[in-house]
Amino acid sequence: MSGKNILFSVLLLFVPVSIAAHILEWGELTVFITAGLAILPLAAWMGSATEELAVVVGPTLGGLLNATFGNATELIIAIVALNAGLVDVVKASITGSIIGNLLLVMGLSMLLGGLRYKEQEFQPVVARVNASLMNLAAIAILIPTAVDFTSSGISEATIQHLSIAIAIVLMAVYIMTLVFSMKTHVYLYDAGVAAAEPSEDDAEEAKSKLWVWVGVLLGATILVAVESELLVDALEVATSQLGLTALFTGVVLVPIIGNAAEHATAVTVAMKNKMDLSVSVALGSSLQIALFVAPVLVITGWVLGQPMDLNFNPFELVAVAVSVLIANSISSDGRSNWLEGTLLLAAYAVLGLAFYFHPVIDGIG
Amino acid sequence: MSGKNILFSVLLLFVPVSIAAHILEWGELTVFITAGLAILPLAAWMGSATEELAVVVGPTLGGLLNATFGNATELIIAIVALNAGLVDVVKASITGSIIGNLLLVMGLSMLLGGLRYKEQEFQPVVARVNASLMNLAAIAILIPTAVDFTSSGISEATIQHLSIAIAIVLMAVYIMTLVFSMKTHVYLYDAGVAAAEPSEDDAEEAKSKLWVWVGVLLGATILVAVESELLVDALEVATSQLGLTALFTGVVLVPIIGNAAEHATAVTVAMKNKMDLSVSVALGSSLQIALFVAPVLVITGWVLGQPMDLNFNPFELVAVAVSVLIANSISSDGRSNWLEGTLLLAAYAVLGLAFYFHPVIDGIG
Amino acid sequence: MSGKNILFSVLLLFVPVSIAAHILEWGELTVFITAGLAILPLAAWMGSATEELAVVVGPTLGGLLNATFGNATELIIAIVALNAGLVDVVKASITGSIIGNLLLVMGLSMLLGGLRYKEQEFQPVVARVNASLMNLAAIAILIPTAVDFTSSGISEATIQHLSIAIAIVLMAVYIMTLVFSMKTHVYLYDAGVAAAEPSEDDAEEAKSKLWVWVGVLLGATILVAVESELLVDALEVATSQLGLTALFTGVVLVPIIGNAAEHATAVTVAMKNKMDLSVSVALGSSLQIALFVAPVLVITGWVLGQPMDLNFNPFELVAVAVSVLIANSISSDGRSNWLEGTLLLAAYAVLGLAFYFHPVIDGIG
Repeated sequence: MSGKNILFSVLLLFVPVSIAAHILEWGELTVFITAGLAILPLAAWMGSATEELAVVVGPTLGGLLNATFGNATELIIAIVALNAGLVDVVKASITGSIIGNLLLVMGLSMLLGGLRYKEQEFQPVVARVNASLMNLAAIAILIPTAVDFTSSGISEATIQHLSIAIAIVLMAVYIMTLVFSMKTHVYLYDAGVAAAEPSEDDAEEAKSKLWVWVGVLLGATILVAVESELLVDALEVATSQLGLTALFTGVVLVPIIGNAAEHATAVTVAMKNKMDLSVSVALGSSLQIALFVAPVLVITGWVLGQPMDLNFNPFELVAVAVSVLIANSISSDGRSNWLEGTLLLAAYAVLGLAFYFHPVIDGIG
Repeated sequence: MSGKNILFSVLLLFVPVSIAAHILEWGELTVFITAGLAILPLAAWMGSATEELAVVVGPTLGGLLNATFGNATELIIAIVALNAGLVDVVKASITGSIIGNLLLVMGLSMLLGGLRYKEQEFQPVVARVNASLMNLAAIAILIPTAVDFTSSGISEATIQHLSIAIAIVLMAVYIMTLVFSMKTHVYLYDAGVAAAEPSEDDAEEAKSKLWVWVGVLLGATILVAVESELLVDALEVATSQLGLTALFTGVVLVPIIGNAAEHATAVTVAMKNKMDLSVSVALGSSLQIALFVAPVLVITGWVLGQPMDLNFNPFELVAVAVSVLIANSISSDGRSNWLEGTLLLAAYAVLGLAFYFHPVIDGIG
Repeated sequence: MSGKNILFSVLLLFVPVSIAAHILEWGELTVFITAGLAILPLAAWMGSATEELAVVVGPTLGGLLNATFGNATELIIAIVALNAGLVDVVKASITGSIIGNLLLVMGLSMLLGGLRYKEQEFQPVVARVNASLMNLAAIAILIPTAVDFTSSGISEATIQHLSIAIAIVLMAVYIMTLVFSMKTHVYLYDAGVAAAEPSEDDAEEAKSKLWVWVGVLLGATILVAVESELLVDALEVATSQLGLTALFTGVVLVPIIGNAAEHATAVTVAMKNKMDLSVSVALGSSLQIALFVAPVLVITGWVLGQPMDLNFNPFELVAVAVSVLIANSISSDGRSNWLEGTLLLAAYAVLGLAFYFHPVIDGIG
C-alpha cells in the first residue's frame, strides 16, 4: 500500500467524524472543516474509479460519466437550496462552477501536466466544438440580463418566460451534443483513445474488475453528496466566522469543494498525459452545468414555485464571459503547456480577488 | 420536369396574385402572405442562376454576384424606408440582416449540408480573413454607441460626424477587400474552385447558356425587389394583426424574407458540398451589409436630409456582437458539421426569443 | 553612405536644436516639433542596433531587448508624470500604447511587409500564447472597472487594494513568461531564427561589432528619453495651440511618438520578411506595457503617495478590448498579408476618430 493510499484511507475517517460532528452538534466550523476533508479522499476514489472505467469504455464516455457524477452532486445540492428559496446562492454557484471548471480545474491540469510533459495534445476538432458550445452557453446566460439591462422596464414574469424558453433551447442543444459525440461523430472522440490506449493486459484487468469500480464510483458519489449537504448546511455560519462574504462563498468556495471530484480526476489524468480525458472532464463539466444543470434548475424552480430566472448579476456575467474567452483562446488549438495553465490560474486569481473585494451584490447578502 | 420545378412554377403564380392583391386592395395580410410566397420561387431561380453562373466565373465572383444581387434588393428597400423617415426600422433591418446571414443562413447551410456529409471543408485562410473583417465591422458599429454611452452628453451632430467618418473608413476597407480577393490574392479564393470543379462538359454547357442565366438572374432580382416593396408596405398592418411588435418585425421578419435569395443559394450549394460558395454567400452577405450597405445608407441619409447615424440600440449591439463571436468561432477553422449548424441556429433562436420578449426599444414602436 | 543614412544624419541635428529650443525658450510648439523630429533618427538608430544585435542573440531576445528599451523610455516618462500627479494622463498613455502597438505598429508592419511578400509567416504557437497573454492582460485591466461599475458604491481604497493585488498577479505572470520563453520553451522561439538566419559571415561581422551596437543602442535610448521629456513638457501647451483635446493627445499622440522605436524596428524587419521579430516587437511591447509597466506604475504610485488604480474610463476599456479582439483574430494563425495589416489600421482609424470626437472623459481635460 503506497503512501498516497494510506493518506487517503486516513482521510476517509473524516466521513464518520463529520457525520458525528453534525449529529452531536460539535459546531458549524467543525462540521465544515471535517466534511471538507472527508470529500478529498472520496473525490480521489471517484477519480481512480473513473479512470479505471475509462480504460474500458473510452475517454469520452469516461469523461461524461465523471462529469455527470460530479454534477449529480451539484444538482442535488442546488435543488435542495432552491427549494429552501436560496435562488441567488444557486445562481452564484452556477457561475462559480463554470468559472472554476474552466479556469481552476483546467488551469491546474495544464500546469501540473505541463511540468511533466513539454507539450500536451488533445483533439483540436473536439476542443473547437466545445469552445463553440461554451460560447453558446455564455450567450444564453448573457441574453436575459442584457434584455433586462437595455429595456426601460420589464416584468419579472417576462424575464421568467424568456428564461424558460432559453432553457428549453439549451436542453435541446445538450441532447444534440450527446447524439453528435456518441452516435454521428464518435470517431472524433475515439481518436483520442488510440493515442492513450493502455496495453491489452491493463484493459483485460480493468474489465474483470468493472463491477468493483462501478460500485466504488456509486458509493463514493453517494457519500460525496451526503458530505456536500453537511458542508452546505454549515457553510453560512462557518464562513461568516471566517470573515468571508456570502458572495465570495457562493462563487468561489462552494464550487471548489463541489468540483473536487472533477478537479482530482482532471489533474490526475493530465499528469498521466491523457489530456483528452482531462480537458473532456473540465470543459465537459462546465458545459453540463450551463447546458443541463442550469436549464433543469430553471424548470424545476418553476415547478417548485421558487421561480429561478437566468437574469444574473452583471459582474457574474462579466466573470463568465472573460472565463469563456480565455479558456477558449487557450484550449481551441488542441495543445497545452505549463504557461497556458498558469494563465488560466492567473485569470482565476484575478476574478477571485475581484469577488473578494466586490462590496455587495443585490440579493446576495 | 421534376417535382421541385413544378412546385416552383406554381409558386410563381403568386407574383401576379400579390400584385393584384395590392392593386385591388384585398387587405394587407393577403398582400403580405402572397408576396412572401412569391419571393420563394424567385429566390430559388436566383439561386439556380447564380450557381450556373458560378460554374463559369468561379465561386468567389459567383458568391459576390449573389450577395450583391440579394443586397441590392435590401439597399433599395432601405433607401425608400429611409426617405420616408423610418430611420430606426432601417437600423433594425441592418442588425437583423447581419444576424440572419451569420446565424440562420450559415446555420441552416451547415446543418443541412452536414446531414449529408460528415465533415465539410472550406478555405480556412479566407474564413479567417472574413472573421477579421466581421470583427472590424462589429467594432465600427459598436464604437458610436460606446462613445454615446460613455460620455456625459454628446450632441447628435457629433455622433453624425463620427458615423460619417467611420462610414468612409468602412467603404475604403470594402474596396480593399475587393482588390484582395479579385486581384492580389485570387489564388486563395480559387483554391476552393478546384475542389468543387465540375466536369468540362458542364462548364461548356453553362457557358453556352451564360446569357440566359444572366437574364434569369436580372429578371428574378427585379421581381424580388417589386415583391419586397409590396411586402414592406403591408408589413406594419399585417404583423400587428398577427400580434407581433415592430421591433421583432424589423429585426427578425424583414431580414428573413429579404435574405431569402442568399438563404436559398447558400443552403442549396451546401447540400451539394460546395461549402466554399455557401459560406462565401452567407458571410459575404453579412460583410456587404456591414461594410457597404450600412455606410451607403449613412451617407445617403445625410444627402437626403434624413440623417442616419451608427448609434444603435444597445441590445441590437449585444446581438450583433454575440452573433459575430459565435459565427467566427465556428467558421474560422474552415470545417463544419451538423452540430455546428445546430449551434448557430440555437444562437439565432435565443436571440429571436429575446427580441420577441424585449418589451420596448426607444424610437422603435 | 546611402540616402537614408544622410537623411537620418541630418535629422540628428534636431537633437541639439530641440535642447536649445527648450533652454532658450523658443516656444512650446517649436520644442514640440523639433523634439518630435529628433526622435525619428534616434528610433531608427535603435532599430538598426537592435536588428544587428538580434542577429547575434536571436530574434526573441532581440525583440525583448527592443521592447524593453522602448518601454524604458515610456516608464521613465510615466513615473515623472505620475510624480507630478498626472494620473489620468498616465492611464491614457497606457491605453494608447497598448492600442498603438497592437493596431498601428503591427498593422503598418503587416501592410508594408505584405506589399513585398504575398504571405508572411511567424510562429503560430508563440502567436497563440501571446494572444492568450493579451487576453489575460485585458481581463486584468477590465476587472477593477467592472467591479466599480456593477457595485452600488465602492470606496477608492478598495479599488486601490484590488488594483495592487491584480498588479502583483500580472507581474508574477510576466516573470513566468520570461521563464517560458528563455528557459523551458526556448525552442518555440528559436524556430523563427532558423528561417530568418543570416549567413555565417553576417553573424561573424555582427559579433565583432557587438559592443559598438550596444553603445549605439544605449546612447540612442538615453537621447530618446531626453527628447521625450522635452516633448511631454511642451505637449500640453503645444497641442492646445493645435486645437487638440488632452484625451486625444494622451491616447493617440503621446504613444505614437513614445513607440516610434518599436514602430521603426517592427516595420523595418517586416519589410525584410523577418515577421517573427516584427510581431514579437509589436505584441511584446503591448504585453510589456500591460504586464510590466502598468503594474510597476500602480505600485510606484502607491509608494510615491500618488495612488494610481486600474480603474480606467469605460471607453478606454472598450478600445482596449476591441483592439485585443481584432489583433488576436488576425495574429493567432501565424500568417499575415497586406489586407490584414489594412484591417488593423482601419480599426486604429475608427478608434482614433472616436477619441477625436469623444466630448469629455472625467478627470481628463
